[in-house]
Amino acid sequence: MTKITSLDTTLRDGMQAEKISFSVADKLKIVQILDRLGVDYIEAGNPASNIKDEEFFREAKQLTLTHAKLAAFGSTCKKGCPAAKDRNLLKIVESGAPVGVIFGKAWDMHVTEVLITTPEENLRMVSDSVKFLKSSGLEVIFDAEHFFDGYLRNPDYALAVLQAAENAGADIIALCDTNGGMFPDDIAKTVQQVTKTISVPIGIHSHNDSGLAVACTLAAVEAGAAHIQGTLTGIGERCGNANLSTCIANLQLKRGYDLVPDLSLLTTAAREVAEVANITVSGLPYVSKSAFSHKAGMHIDAVLKTSASFEHIDPSAVGNHRNILVSEMSGKSGLLPVIRQIDPTIEKDSKELKRILDRLKELEYEGYQFEGANASLELVIKKALGLYHPLFELKQCKILAEQGETPRQGYASVIIKVQVDGKEEITAADADGPVHALDIALRKALGAFFPQLAQIRLQDYKVRILNSEATTGAVTRVLIEMTDGKSSWSTVGVSTDVIEASRQALIDGIEYQLLREQV
Amino acid sequence: MTKITSLDTTLRDGMQAEKISFSVADKLKIVQILDRLGVDYIEAGNPASNIKDEEFFREAKQLTLTHAKLAAFGSTCKKGCPAAKDRNLLKIVESGAPVGVIFGKAWDMHVTEVLITTPEENLRMVSDSVKFLKSSGLEVIFDAEHFFDGYLRNPDYALAVLQAAENAGADIIALCDTNGGMFPDDIAKTVQQVTKTISVPIGIHSHNDSGLAVACTLAAVEAGAAHIQGTLTGIGERCGNANLSTCIANLQLKRGYDLVPDLSLLTTAAREVAEVANITVSGLPYVSKSAFSHKAGMHIDAVLKTSASFEHIDPSAVGNHRNILVSEMSGKSGLLPVIRQIDPTIEKDSKELKRILDRLKELEYEGYQFEGANASLELVIKKALGLYHPLFELKQCKILAEQGETPRQGYASVIIKVQVDGKEEITAADADGPVHALDIALRKALGAFFPQLAQIRLQDYKVRILNSEATTGAVTRVLIEMTDGKSSWSTVGVSTDVIEASRQALIDGIEYQLLREQV
Repeated sequence: MTKITSLDTTLRDGMQAEKISFSVADKLKIVQILDRLGVDYIEAGNPASNIKDEEFFREAKQLTLTHAKLAAFGSTCKKGCPAAKDRNLLKIVESGAPVGVIFGKAWDMHVTEVLITTPEENLRMVSDSVKFLKSSGLEVIFDAEHFFDGYLRNPDYALAVLQAAENAGADIIALCDTNGGMFPDDIAKTVQQVTKTISVPIGIHSHNDSGLAVACTLAAVEAGAAHIQGTLTGIGERCGNANLSTCIANLQLKRGYDLVPDLSLLTTAAREVAEVANITVSGLPYVSKSAFSHKAGMHIDAVLKTSASFEHIDPSAVGNHRNILVSEMSGKSGLLPVIRQIDPTIEKDSKELKRILDRLKELEYEGYQFEGANASLELVIKKALGLYHPLFELKQCKILAEQGETPRQGYASVIIKVQVDGKEEITAADADGPVHALDIALRKALGAFFPQLAQIRLQDYKVRILNSEATTGAVTRVLIEMTDGKSSWSTVGVSTDVIEASRQALIDGIEYQLLREQV
Repeated sequence: MTKITSLDTTLRDGMQAEKISFSVADKLKIVQILDRLGVDYIEAGNPASNIKDEEFFREAKQLTLTHAKLAAFGSTCKKGCPAAKDRNLLKIVESGAPVGVIFGKAWDMHVTEVLITTPEENLRMVSDSVKFLKSSGLEVIFDAEHFFDGYLRNPDYALAVLQAAENAGADIIALCDTNGGMFPDDIAKTVQQVTKTISVPIGIHSHNDSGLAVACTLAAVEAGAAHIQGTLTGIGERCGNANLSTCIANLQLKRGYDLVPDLSLLTTAAREVAEVANITVSGLPYVSKSAFSHKAGMHIDAVLKTSASFEHIDPSAVGNHRNILVSEMSGKSGLLPVIRQIDPTIEKDSKELKRILDRLKELEYEGYQFEGANASLELVIKKALGLYHPLFELKQCKILAEQGETPRQGYASVIIKVQVDGKEEITAADADGPVHALDIALRKALGAFFPQLAQIRLQDYKVRILNSEATTGAVTRVLIEMTDGKSSWSTVGVSTDVIEASRQALIDGIEYQLLREQV
């Protein structure tokens, strides 16, 4: 199998998408997800352009990656400036990343009208910059910006730029369709021409402005490219970059190239990246829920007779699964092992299984999601099996939210009354926001009966508006992760009221742990 | 210019997308939008499959279309049933639509394993059905389902199906990649073969399961197809159909085919369809806001020098326009045009520009994000330029959140006091959640002074936890979109308190509109 190396640029080009921004912690998480999937290069930021990226590279030194190499991104040196004195290139070296990706102009119009310099000076900048990074011990990927536009208008100059990078020692030369305007046949013809004169591996970096980024990537590989660039969920400047999960699945499953060690990790990786980016993979090929969802009755019938009838691949090949939207046959086999951990006597035809499935469907219809909420799922199952006995009752919960003392600060106070075995406890707490105050008050009141709650703390708190077009009356889903230091568990709450949804998730988390300790 | 006819199936295949459903009124609206754009055929529903579609066709008879023809969709007659007695085909004729689109099996596996009939009977069904519709006076498009899968495995049979349709008088024969698994080169080769034996116009119907639906459509046209099918916003079963707006723009702008009379209507048409479907065109090629949005400072610089430097086409060719996003990445050149709309005297070296940029960086560091919040951005700029004079003051804002009457329901009551020109107004409101109640109370109190606020409503409300590992004490960012029915504007709020963040965004939105009206 021919190896094709892949570079994910979610953290660099993806950051240029509208409404996307990552904290340093987000970036570190995404690096680990991409490394687990096994992409070869992670283009993680531009250390010269902002402090956040500089901080990221400092912290990234602590990470141990098993497969991927981190790459720092930047431009070639400035006109008139020796590479060894260029602030931008020095930052790339200082970042400690083993790989430097630098972009340079390959379209003469850009050289004269945007950079405002001579074609010769641009060649000097490319050559000098690549040489400097190589002499600093880095692996170097040269991104030839606007290569295809440039090649169409002045092929000799565009090739001269590539040759300058090759002669200077670049390890990979990526041809960029920066404006996303190319068609796959343009790409294929040009890549074929380039591989006649350039002998280092050629890469492809395409954008989706014509809805063709994936097709252009495949065309380049079929024409001889050995390296592809994109983002796992397709996010990126304007209409996005080539969707890397789609490209990887297409090339590996359907054309037999070797990209990642285990393709069945693809769906999870794409969904995890989306979660951190606070976007959904909704509708994406291969990795979305809808990719193997069947809604039309005739299609469901057919797919149950012969899966190939309406599925272009076996969903498990990419770690996804079939999703029958109208039939209840979907969940049983997935749910059974979870239920049997609680009650091992339940069988595939037990009526309890059907009852629980129906209840979950009802709740999912309301907006609950149990994939990321194992503790809430267990409580739903226990309730349905009659195995749930409440340990406490919330008798009163009043929250007063006011304006804080300084602008943009909140202030909330909470009164909570709980009852345990006939005994009541009332208490209050305050904090910089209502959910925070509620969390403190709940554990304070219950702590009077269950001192072990002092060990529990929240690890993660996420809010998602499910139907944002319903505006402030919209349904809100809260996902919470708790830990006692040894293990962690997750819960979900749903309501039109963000405080109520948070309360559900908090209480589920506390109940789950108390019930578990009882056993 | 070679004419390529187009068929939009938003109302049929688009309806099979998850979470999409259209009322009869929605369908009538979409038909008119598509007709104005000038597609040739509108596949508007399956009159035999549901009453809603039957009703639609009854009402559609009142419409006067200037360009498009309505098409009713259905399958060939059932096995063993003469076409003239088939309920499905009779409903197509009764629908009154001038065009009938019927699908038939072209993959022998489907004939024997899904239909469970003989290859010969399937040919009879195809032929008989086409003949019946033709003899009833309809123009007939035959959709050869799973044609490409079938042709790969049994080309003789797949071609025999097409021949049956051609001999029976079909006007167009559309080849379907029903499972969406094909690559553009497969499609091109097969279309070339087919056009050697079939002489009626060939159409292409592709799905996006491999992220290649647009590319497959283009490949088919370049190989000789003269008819394309898709949906204007790309919605459709599983991962969607070929995005028709992308295909139309690509073929007409970049390859010189003739598809619609006026391409500059494309953006509006796609956005109007999306509006009715309750989806966004976010990120779509050509027609989305992001299609010509620029965020990176270097790109903004370049695009202002030479538009072709980062735009693959002139946005006005498809009725779209350039959009400069303001963020920490955009720098001075991105911000300047926005500031100059407020104060045209500001120059690139004005100290005000630097001051505003610094202020934005500070706010972005706290978690604000202005690229999706034009109204809040304008307020920040006005404040920095000394052009902001508050129209009201929020004197008191107390929110009491309690448990609702039924489980999982919230209840919140709000007291608000505002002051305008020395006069105070105090009022209260309640709702199913604190933010909802706050929204009502704010506009109620301010409405006493500014009755025009009755025209304003919220369009979108989004919540994002920025550092979820800080759990309930995390920083929350709220984005709100408001409209007065004519235009819309967006605001942002940030706080550890979701209510406080919402309050900021709500107040910004109200202030922005009141200040704008003053001018």
